[in-house]
Amino acid sequence: MFIKNAWYVACTPDEIDAKPLGRMICGERIVFYRGEGNKVAALADFCPHRGAALSLGFVNDHGHLVCGYHGLEMNCKGQTVQMPGQRVRGFPQNRSFPVEERYGFIWVWTGQEGQADPNKIPHQVWYENPDWAFGGGLYHIKCDYRLMVDNLMDLTHETYVHSSSIGQSEIDETPCKTIVEGQSVVTSRFMEGVMPPPFWKHALRSHQLADDVKVDRWQICRFSPPSNVMIEVGVAHQGYGGYDAPDSKKVYSIVVDFITPESESSIHYFWGMARKFRSQDKALTAAIRDGQAKIFAEDQEVLERQQENIQANPDRSLLKLNIDMGGVQARKIIDQLIDGEQAAS
Amino acid sequence: MFIKNAWYVACTPDEIDAKPLGRMICGERIVFYRGEGNKVAALADFCPHRGAALSLGFVNDHGHLVCGYHGLEMNCKGQTVQMPGQRVRGFPQNRSFPVEERYGFIWVWTGQEGQADPNKIPHQVWYENPDWAFGGGLYHIKCDYRLMVDNLMDLTHETYVHSSSIGQSEIDETPCKTIVEGQSVVTSRFMEGVMPPPFWKHALRSHQLADDVKVDRWQICRFSPPSNVMIEVGVAHQGYGGYDAPDSKKVYSIVVDFITPESESSIHYFWGMARKFRSQDKALTAAIRDGQAKIFAEDQEVLERQQENIQANPDRSLLKLNIDMGGVQARKIIDQLIDGEQAAS
Amino acid sequence: MFIKNAWYVACTPDEIDAKPLGRMICGERIVFYRGEGNKVAALADFCPHRGAALSLGFVNDHGHLVCGYHGLEMNCKGQTVQMPGQRVRGFPQNRSFPVEERYGFIWVWTGQEGQADPNKIPHQVWYENPDWAFGGGLYHIKCDYRLMVDNLMDLTHETYVHSSSIGQSEIDETPCKTIVEGQSVVTSRFMEGVMPPPFWKHALRSHQLADDVKVDRWQICRFSPPSNVMIEVGVAHQGYGGYDAPDSKKVYSIVVDFITPESESSIHYFWGMARKFRSQDKALTAAIRDGQAKIFAEDQEVLERQQENIQANPDRSLLKLNIDMGGVQARKIIDQLIDGEQAAS
Repeated sequence: MFIKNAWYVACTPDEIDAKPLGRMICGERIVFYRGEGNKVAALADFCPHRGAALSLGFVNDHGHLVCGYHGLEMNCKGQTVQMPGQRVRGFPQNRSFPVEERYGFIWVWTGQEGQADPNKIPHQVWYENPDWAFGGGLYHIKCDYRLMVDNLMDLTHETYVHSSSIGQSEIDETPCKTIVEGQSVVTSRFMEGVMPPPFWKHALRSHQLADDVKVDRWQICRFSPPSNVMIEVGVAHQGYGGYDAPDSKKVYSIVVDFITPESESSIHYFWGMARKFRSQDKALTAAIRDGQAKIFAEDQEVLERQQENIQANPDRSLLKLNIDMGGVQARKIIDQLIDGEQAAS
Repeated sequence: MFIKNAWYVACTPDEIDAKPLGRMICGERIVFYRGEGNKVAALADFCPHRGAALSLGFVNDHGHLVCGYHGLEMNCKGQTVQMPGQRVRGFPQNRSFPVEERYGFIWVWTGQEGQADPNKIPHQVWYENPDWAFGGGLYHIKCDYRLMVDNLMDLTHETYVHSSSIGQSEIDETPCKTIVEGQSVVTSRFMEGVMPPPFWKHALRSHQLADDVKVDRWQICRFSPPSNVMIEVGVAHQGYGGYDAPDSKKVYSIVVDFITPESESSIHYFWGMARKFRSQDKALTAAIRDGQAKIFAEDQEVLERQQENIQANPDRSLLKLNIDMGGVQARKIIDQLIDGEQAAS
Repeated sequence: MFIKNAWYVACTPDEIDAKPLGRMICGERIVFYRGEGNKVAALADFCPHRGAALSLGFVNDHGHLVCGYHGLEMNCKGQTVQMPGQRVRGFPQNRSFPVEERYGFIWVWTGQEGQADPNKIPHQVWYENPDWAFGGGLYHIKCDYRLMVDNLMDLTHETYVHSSSIGQSEIDETPCKTIVEGQSVVTSRFMEGVMPPPFWKHALRSHQLADDVKVDRWQICRFSPPSNVMIEVGVAHQGYGGYDAPDSKKVYSIVVDFITPESESSIHYFWGMARKFRSQDKALTAAIRDGQAKIFAEDQEVLERQQENIQANPDRSLLKLNIDMGGVQARKIIDQLIDGEQAAS
């Protein structure tokens, strides 16, 4: 079950640069491409002629998607505009999906077309702002998208899964607090006077700050539907106000997580980090990106084995502890939205 | 659903040269081997003793197939003739399949034994005729056999799938014509005064004919049950009568396609080309074979993705355009024959 | 269907040396590890918190298993003893499995805990006896465990599957005899005055015995529930009493086979050989182990194809010849025990 009336990240622009991209999103096989006026388009990845995958085709000079099997030519509304030797007026129209390019991603709307308001795409403060730098990547993980939401809303796992980089024992010793703000869920944790773990030592040094002193550390995880989790993370030299310390005393960034369901048991996981220090240092951007890639890869086996375990033990219920409240509340919101959509249809 | 009372190509002789071959044909697991008198034999690939795959065994000096597990010895009728330390008279008989070696292939009959007339094996004009040369290969493709029939009966796909070798825009600009002749379907297309595409330029040069002049080109696709498609293809220098031009003015060949269903959604695809020019030039035979291997490999992804798409969208119907008439008529004949077999049994 | 009230070999000690081991036994996902007092423990491989695989975690200084996701800490009874920031008293208990380390293996009891008597673990005469040496290995094979029992209780297959090492035609020329002794089944074969096959030639030379003379050879296969097969094998110079010949005239060993079902159609196969000659020669132990590894690998394809064949042909019944009596009687005992367990529960 998926929230349908929502913008999901479908891909990054480079993925449709050379040729169309076929990708399943929420169980729908969709082809993404740059069509008329170089604008991105998304259609059911099924040629109405004989069922070929349109994503194996190409875009012609008119910006039309041409089926690579027999040359059927389709516009971005899913209408066949031409096919060699054929009258195409009666051809069935393909479903088209609202699609937007924004903040460095291609977003697709999988629900009712009339409700697809681009302004609902969540604003990314870091995008095209010279004070910020962003780097990220994409992982395919065989797990229910909600297991990844749980993962990101409960960062106590960092102590165990990511012990050599961002984990530290103070994380699970410090209680977190979860609040619901409309359709968002915020789980936050503030650790005072702790030694920075390796990742943050490196960040402090990059920012020309001492890395061998105690810091105040924060993690503020924010879930928003359908399945986005943005995490504000940072450290400040102790005693300067923590989260509210002046920029000269802290380093901070936003962990960016767009979780796009592929099927009920697999996801396209778009992860990244936007930072507000030394934003012009591209080598640092690459280094952080590579480090994050390694850290996030550590979650893959955990999540895939968890998925297998839950499928193999359908009768076992899971605990809902205080640390799980972020995920629990996020699931409530997801369930409400799905119920609402089903009631409306 | 398959036509059962039919000869299918099972393998080539080299595949049973060193040891028995296990292959599934129309859902039947069959072992092929050279038995008594070096004659080819085909049996259910299941040892009546304990169910081992007979194809893992060997052929002994009596031409009997010996199970590689415990030594049960079977003749080509599927009767156990001996087993160490056992009286075998009461052993259940294995199903044997009528099998013939002809035209460089091993053919198997999957239906009722009494109806297996070797004279129904389609005659191959090019076989053991010094004016002709043949080269071919085998691909395993995960698609319904009828999708491959469609593919071969509608050559407009050459313009798109094989654009760098045999495709050219005149193919889909020139209407084709489909007629039904008894149980055969013929789709033909004649293109007059076109420039030859790369494959035919090469063939013209091989035949010491100018390759930079306009030609008349033809494609005559003939479907015959169960799932054979022979395609006469060629070019003649323009104005000499096209298909009927004298041999000195044309190059032509037969594309040979024997499509053997493995299961409902996979095939053994025996492809090849017989040509009637420079038939003694073995290097040319090899070059053409390698070129055809590359061209036909281009179809594999298209067909497998089409198969997936159709399975994932069981409610979407496909179009039946004029270019599809070859495949549509072929399916009608296939359906009639299957219905007839089911009514008879 | 499996016998549940039984000791199965789960793993060897080296497999849990560095970290916990997750392994499915008789359909149960179990984690094995060294816990309190370095004693081996076995628990359901499912964290009661969020379903993570406990086998991805680690053992802490208290000998408790710590979940690698969020740090839940469990004792060897399956009770959660601690979790950072949590009161754990009400946490559901995980199933623990009786487990014993004995004879160089870790044994697990998959049935009712109260019946798990370690004295039921079959005694291994060769263990920690300086006159004997043991070497072995583990294979994962995709077949029903009973097909492997059949394989080991009918050694006529050696003539065919293992023709270059231990097979010889006299095996299937010599009748075997099967008797049932309580819950054990013994199939024995005595061959008199045969030439030793390559494996035994090598063993004779290792024992400083002539290898170019006739020998008396024996094979005594003993099945015991749940699915263990121990095979006494050996050769003696002809005329010295065969099995009862003095040690100076014979070489002999025990083929050790512990077959642990993973699922209905896959097994963990622990194989090995214990020998009573040149037991201190470690290079010989390694050589024999490598040779046996090659021989037993020859069975894998045969068994996996047999499994496929039987699944694809559910209506075909198998023969039960005299040579199959060992397997047939073993299956009767297995069935009786399973029926008994089901009647009791």
